[in-house]
Amino acid sequence: MPTTNTDVKLNHDELLEHVLGPWAEDRRHVRKLMEDPVFHHPFNVTKEEHRELTLQQLHELVDRNIIGKAYPKEFGGQGNPGANVAGFAEMFHAHPSMQIKGGVQWGLFGSAILSLGNEEQHKKWLPGVLNMDLPGVYAMTEIGHGSDVGNIGTTATYIPEDDEFEIHTPFKAAWKEYLGNAALHGKAAVVFAQLITKNVNYGVHAFFVPLRDDEGNFLPGVGGEDDGVKGGLNGVDNGRLHFTHVRIPRTNLLDKLGHVNQHGDYTTPIASSGRRFFTMLGALVQGRVSLALTAANASALAMTGAITYGNQRRQFNAASDIEEQVLLDYGLHQRRLIDRLARTYADIFTTNDLLVKFHEVFSGEDDTDENRQELETLAAGIKAVTTWNAMDVYQEAREATGGAGYIAGKNRFNALRDDLDIYTTFEGDNNVLLQLVGRRLLGDYSKEFADGSFKVLTRYVAERAEHSLYQRSGLRRVVQQVTDVGSDRRSAAWLKDTEVQRELFSDRVRTQVAEVADALRPVAKKPQAEQAQVFNENQYDLIKAAKSQAELLQWESFTDALERIEDQDTRKIMTWMRDLFALSTIERDLGWFIEYGRISQQRARALRQYTNRLAARLRPHAQDLVDAFGFNQNHLRMDITSGSEQQRQEEALEYYRRQRASGEAPIPEKVYRARNS
Amino acid sequence: MPTTNTDVKLNHDELLEHVLGPWAEDRRHVRKLMEDPVFHHPFNVTKEEHRELTLQQLHELVDRNIIGKAYPKEFGGQGNPGANVAGFAEMFHAHPSMQIKGGVQWGLFGSAILSLGNEEQHKKWLPGVLNMDLPGVYAMTEIGHGSDVGNIGTTATYIPEDDEFEIHTPFKAAWKEYLGNAALHGKAAVVFAQLITKNVNYGVHAFFVPLRDDEGNFLPGVGGEDDGVKGGLNGVDNGRLHFTHVRIPRTNLLDKLGHVNQHGDYTTPIASSGRRFFTMLGALVQGRVSLALTAANASALAMTGAITYGNQRRQFNAASDIEEQVLLDYGLHQRRLIDRLARTYADIFTTNDLLVKFHEVFSGEDDTDENRQELETLAAGIKAVTTWNAMDVYQEAREATGGAGYIAGKNRFNALRDDLDIYTTFEGDNNVLLQLVGRRLLGDYSKEFADGSFKVLTRYVAERAEHSLYQRSGLRRVVQQVTDVGSDRRSAAWLKDTEVQRELFSDRVRTQVAEVADALRPVAKKPQAEQAQVFNENQYDLIKAAKSQAELLQWESFTDALERIEDQDTRKIMTWMRDLFALSTIERDLGWFIEYGRISQQRARALRQYTNRLAARLRPHAQDLVDAFGFNQNHLRMDITSGSEQQRQEEALEYYRRQRASGEAPIPEKVYRARNS
Repeated sequence: MPTTNTDVKLNHDELLEHVLGPWAEDRRHVRKLMEDPVFHHPFNVTKEEHRELTLQQLHELVDRNIIGKAYPKEFGGQGNPGANVAGFAEMFHAHPSMQIKGGVQWGLFGSAILSLGNEEQHKKWLPGVLNMDLPGVYAMTEIGHGSDVGNIGTTATYIPEDDEFEIHTPFKAAWKEYLGNAALHGKAAVVFAQLITKNVNYGVHAFFVPLRDDEGNFLPGVGGEDDGVKGGLNGVDNGRLHFTHVRIPRTNLLDKLGHVNQHGDYTTPIASSGRRFFTMLGALVQGRVSLALTAANASALAMTGAITYGNQRRQFNAASDIEEQVLLDYGLHQRRLIDRLARTYADIFTTNDLLVKFHEVFSGEDDTDENRQELETLAAGIKAVTTWNAMDVYQEAREATGGAGYIAGKNRFNALRDDLDIYTTFEGDNNVLLQLVGRRLLGDYSKEFADGSFKVLTRYVAERAEHSLYQRSGLRRVVQQVTDVGSDRRSAAWLKDTEVQRELFSDRVRTQVAEVADALRPVAKKPQAEQAQVFNENQYDLIKAAKSQAELLQWESFTDALERIEDQDTRKIMTWMRDLFALSTIERDLGWFIEYGRISQQRARALRQYTNRLAARLRPHAQDLVDAFGFNQNHLRMDITSGSEQQRQEEALEYYRRQRASGEAPIPEKVYRARNS
Repeated sequence: MPTTNTDVKLNHDELLEHVLGPWAEDRRHVRKLMEDPVFHHPFNVTKEEHRELTLQQLHELVDRNIIGKAYPKEFGGQGNPGANVAGFAEMFHAHPSMQIKGGVQWGLFGSAILSLGNEEQHKKWLPGVLNMDLPGVYAMTEIGHGSDVGNIGTTATYIPEDDEFEIHTPFKAAWKEYLGNAALHGKAAVVFAQLITKNVNYGVHAFFVPLRDDEGNFLPGVGGEDDGVKGGLNGVDNGRLHFTHVRIPRTNLLDKLGHVNQHGDYTTPIASSGRRFFTMLGALVQGRVSLALTAANASALAMTGAITYGNQRRQFNAASDIEEQVLLDYGLHQRRLIDRLARTYADIFTTNDLLVKFHEVFSGEDDTDENRQELETLAAGIKAVTTWNAMDVYQEAREATGGAGYIAGKNRFNALRDDLDIYTTFEGDNNVLLQLVGRRLLGDYSKEFADGSFKVLTRYVAERAEHSLYQRSGLRRVVQQVTDVGSDRRSAAWLKDTEVQRELFSDRVRTQVAEVADALRPVAKKPQAEQAQVFNENQYDLIKAAKSQAELLQWESFTDALERIEDQDTRKIMTWMRDLFALSTIERDLGWFIEYGRISQQRARALRQYTNRLAARLRPHAQDLVDAFGFNQNHLRMDITSGSEQQRQEEALEYYRRQRASGEAPIPEKVYRARNS
């Protein structure tokens, strides 16, 4: 048994810096502000009260001058998209509805104007966006088209005689749906519609459309419905909108990517309609990065609650009548919580890296087409796994804290989980996003092997894996296919070898992608319907490959982070955490690794045992590891982290201690019967 | 490829009978009544309004004369515990808070009086329990002791000079906690406390303790707090209670299992304090059976919603521009939903069998000590897996229906999920329950091999597995250890062989239990602390064994159910469903099966492919399979099952059809550019 576990001590301050990442100061600033109860979420209110409070909080955010960092300096911003998103992630623990309503206003509605509009449009609308004089709606999704934005039904037809566009909803499935700010507060919307001029459809473009007058009544031709009570985020007034021959000036087309002159002639700087479309959806990429970062931060909050409680709460004890063990002393509880703690760190490091990439592109530092596509792929996969992880962490934290965890008003797990839930399908359904990643991986793969036959591939040896995660979002090359012949090294040593882990993770992606590619190859030249059928038969496996890719990214970010840690003890502990992340992730898919001969049957057993041991070794550091997330009770606002549990236990222990000392303690029945039998 | 999938047709009526199980008429009756909006749950109300509505619904249930079937005829009941629980499970889709508040009143508070009280006590209190004149509280759990009831701190000390018990809460950790009816409506409570007389502590007993006067004010010495907003079930007024030297008459001890005479002498019909304690907690067993049945029914409701929508909703299509595929045509969507549909059927058949067992014991038909212990073990494991399955089903149903699924007021997934959440730790934390099962399995195992050495075991060949599930809750004997040598039969044929599946499932339990037993053996004679430590190191694995056991039970119930199906087509389809349940369950733990040589590496691949094929084969029957659950729109109350989606699509299709016919459809940009280039 290792004896090192308590000889080492975590450097809390250093680790916190790595957690907060490259925009640590911005995060600290917003996090600090969020301690103010004015920003906190309410309980036991109707949606009407909740919406009103949330609106007021947005005004308060404006007053505190902490929004708009991503905007240009002339509008009071800092031109710093990374800092903006970093701060955004820190609003979650205060009040997710405020965060998301703010995201709608400044991250979607405003960002669309900023990125798709021209200078004149910026001057006209952005000041109102930023100071909340102009609350707005990002009207993209339709009832009939959620993830499939390209096929939306709303039309924007240019009418040359009036120099106007006519925005029109041709049928109910084309109603705009699930739009934040639509039910009540939105005065205008950026409406995505098929741009039609001279009877040619140039695809989806964005239009600035006024919605309501100053009294809040819909303007002529505009209509809508309230979405009513949602599964969470009830401070955001989601609703539906429809447009009946609504006229807007031609100059309300946000025309950076496509312009229509007064004669109705269309011009664009991006000839490829596909590329133009994806650029049009840029605000969604920012949304995905923001949700991923938020999900990681949300997981950290829940882990802090569950582990702090697990370190105080006592229950049962086989070993002693006097003092019960705390929950975290139990083997099962360690695996439930410390595995997830390791994954939470992986999520944090991965999303911090993602944010750097995002900043590169959105600040213009490195806004090449290729880099933007990489960012899109990375954001899609990382958003998917981090939001799912957060849901899993909240459910486990709730259950691991039992009835206390269910008292939402006191411990918040359920309240925050309900708000988080929609993140899994927000800005793209996670499975659809993973399919995008999968298609990208298939594309990379077929490019590499345009001439090669399949059989070569599984024996393929290529250049060394790139060390840094974000050199390349696509398919990674593997040094060699891992084949575990079993026994040349002690299993634990083999399993914790960084190169072995790297190969296991990257080889899995490649092999899974290769299998799907192989299945698709025979129909590559066949009719589209047949291709689609075979693709469909392999969809489940392709999405598994994309998940494997996301797990590789997580592993890489975690491994990169280790190198930045200076304190030796901290690095040692975090290396155990990285190993636990790696091995517990492999354990969940152990069937694959054994089936493909990557891990031998003998080693599989060693892996399971070593993973248990790792969790136990990390157990003494669990509290330090959550304390390093840096939340205080003003952020946590949970009764279970208040110390009340510890206090109650001490009182109970003291009671029994005194009773025993007094000699008046009642005799247990068993003892009594034994004496009298 | 199989061609049988559309040649066969499900017999909806017959399958519904098997779904509704042995108390089909009682379920139908309650299910029908629950269509009445008077019983439905509200949205967008404060907890105060929600609680008041729920209270009124309980009175309405009394007026409709549908509660109390488990009570003796002299109190207006039917002495039919099976029918009672069957009806209870049908209240969930109307309003879970109503169901649970009813469960507190009649299933816990009333049941405790019925099963632990004497005839005089029955006459005195049961009429008021049944007609709601006496709303009550089941005061067992304490802040400091959730699952560990044996060590609660509340005391009930007999004071001979006054012929009274003094109920006392000695410290804050002993406050009663999370009690339904405690915050507002409870007039009395059954309080569990350590019975102390003549300075001997006879362990936990139940006492009838008045709480509030007719104006709703606490009686002297009684105090409490409101638990406030919870993660769900906010129609139930949960709260805390404490007692400061509260006196009650000696005759308020519910004394069937332990009596104190006026001199303070204690007598009991159950000498074993352990056995007495478990009998005392009988109401919890009923609770677990009720929650398991409810969870299965809840899963069926969610599957109906998600699959109906999946059969209507269209999104993307690679194959055709004209009509998009419905979601359920996608391979991934099939695995997401049809796998879970198969598991839902497994849950339904398993809980129906469990209900039969429960009825045997609680009706007195077969209330032996052994049968009761078996029931306890079965209920513990089955409650754990079915409630977890339901949570998983609700989350997947929500995500699979996207934004629509999040509109709680319309589609209810989140609202019902929030209510269900606590079922995972209600009446016993699922992991603690599984640990109970694991200990029982270890006990069985050590009994069988009291003399044998460990090495014998893995080669052990014993009598044939009992055919019917509930012959034996404990460790099942295996015909032979499965060793997959690969290739003597076609993989698909091997995998769908009932005996092969049986052996795979039962052998896994036995092997996993044997491993833990083996790990514990060396310390069997060692000090308790050392034993506890080794047990702890193996806790995670023991709980995995208990889950494997629960999955075996599910598989057995499903297989038994097949034999009862008379219609040949229906049996064929349901056999595919059973196979999908078996193989997708094995797939999730494939690592284990390969590692232990139960499934060869080659066969593992065949299993994954065949499981995909099975889901595809079942796809045409998916709608029939959920329709056979028998819910109509009054039960579902979901917009997504209303047909509105289909209607919208038809409208949109018609729009495009006419546009094309008119020759006025805008030309797509690509076509236009091609023409003009």
